[in-house]
Amino acid sequence: MVNIPIVRNILQANENIASENRQFFKENGLLVINLLSSPGAGKTTFLEKTIEMLNGEMRIGVIEGDIQSTLDSERIEKCGAPVVQINTEGGCHLDANMIKAALPDLKVQVIDILFIENVGNLVCPAEFNLGEDMKVMLLSVAEGDDKPLKYPLAFRESKALVINKSDLLPFTNFHTEKAKQYSLDINPKLEIFETSCYTGEGLNRWIQWLKIQALSCS
Amino acid sequence: MVNIPIVRNILQANENIASENRQFFKENGLLVINLLSSPGAGKTTFLEKTIEMLNGEMRIGVIEGDIQSTLDSERIEKCGAPVVQINTEGGCHLDANMIKAALPDLKVQVIDILFIENVGNLVCPAEFNLGEDMKVMLLSVAEGDDKPLKYPLAFRESKALVINKSDLLPFTNFHTEKAKQYSLDINPKLEIFETSCYTGEGLNRWIQWLKIQALSCS
Repeated sequence: MVNIPIVRNILQANENIASENRQFFKENGLLVINLLSSPGAGKTTFLEKTIEMLNGEMRIGVIEGDIQSTLDSERIEKCGAPVVQINTEGGCHLDANMIKAALPDLKVQVIDILFIENVGNLVCPAEFNLGEDMKVMLLSVAEGDDKPLKYPLAFRESKALVINKSDLLPFTNFHTEKAKQYSLDINPKLEIFETSCYTGEGLNRWIQWLKIQALSCS
Repeated sequence: MVNIPIVRNILQANENIASENRQFFKENGLLVINLLSSPGAGKTTFLEKTIEMLNGEMRIGVIEGDIQSTLDSERIEKCGAPVVQINTEGGCHLDANMIKAALPDLKVQVIDILFIENVGNLVCPAEFNLGEDMKVMLLSVAEGDDKPLKYPLAFRESKALVINKSDLLPFTNFHTEKAKQYSLDINPKLEIFETSCYTGEGLNRWIQWLKIQALSCS
């Protein structure tokens, strides 16, 4: 019983700082996307492809959230995008205060779209707003089509769902239509993309949609 | 700064209840395995195969941990194993107190090995002991071979690592030797299995090892 008010206080404090971050992003004309998924759903490769396909047409910046290591940051840096690393040192999600602390290192003048790659975790990151315009979640087809039923909050909180690694579809028992229906039952407004970063399937549609989001934000 | 002592208290309280659970399991001669993985690494299918292959030679019981839904419990029940469902209602991991509350519903008289299928999450479940004899973690090859570097605690805490969905290896850039080496760098005593629940690869070795663990425990 004691835990409930403590957790509420933490969430409220987080919400207040998220509002400050949101204000900062707005003043600097950034579209900010909080990217969620399980470990290994392909967030970093998806970002690499997104940066490559926008090819300077819109400038991407990235905040990389990891428990430890700088593996993902190094990959993003190679793509030529400015990146700031946050190591949570064991923490299972990013919170608004971590983002606030990273803002001075962010080159906002050269960024149109900021991606925040959250810690790989389908549970806790969905509870903590960071000041983003929207959450986008990735689901790998190798994870199974029942994930919306089992981890509904991330699906409910997201504006878009990317069903990724579609090249693996022939080798799994993942039913795309089922996964879509389960997701839409939870969140009828969810925009859904089916992509493969190997074959390139579906990435064009994602890029077009992303550009529209950025334009309607700036 | 205020959060640290609170978290410590929670972990210590959890540890005390885990000790009580451990005592209960010992008195009843159970081998108890806490099964960890990301969402969609294949824990439930792996349990179905394990139950089927033991074919009554050793009797399995299961505690299913999920945020919500009873999908996995229903699958386990069809295999003929007694199962107790714990829904965490949003919580990102099982804790010792949830297990304690489930004990009266557990038919310990007809169980030799109890599997606790934790919430799909590679972060938080690794921090909370439940009173188990050992943690076993699954890693799907679709998740990538860098996961030990990014989520080290689960690898450090586990006695065995199951590299699962090996049938997908030809279609990914997962390097098994790399994943093994990263894992062993973190935990040199880790027992490693490579399995596919589709082709059956590696499951015999897992079953043999499991039987030895159960015999040395009873």
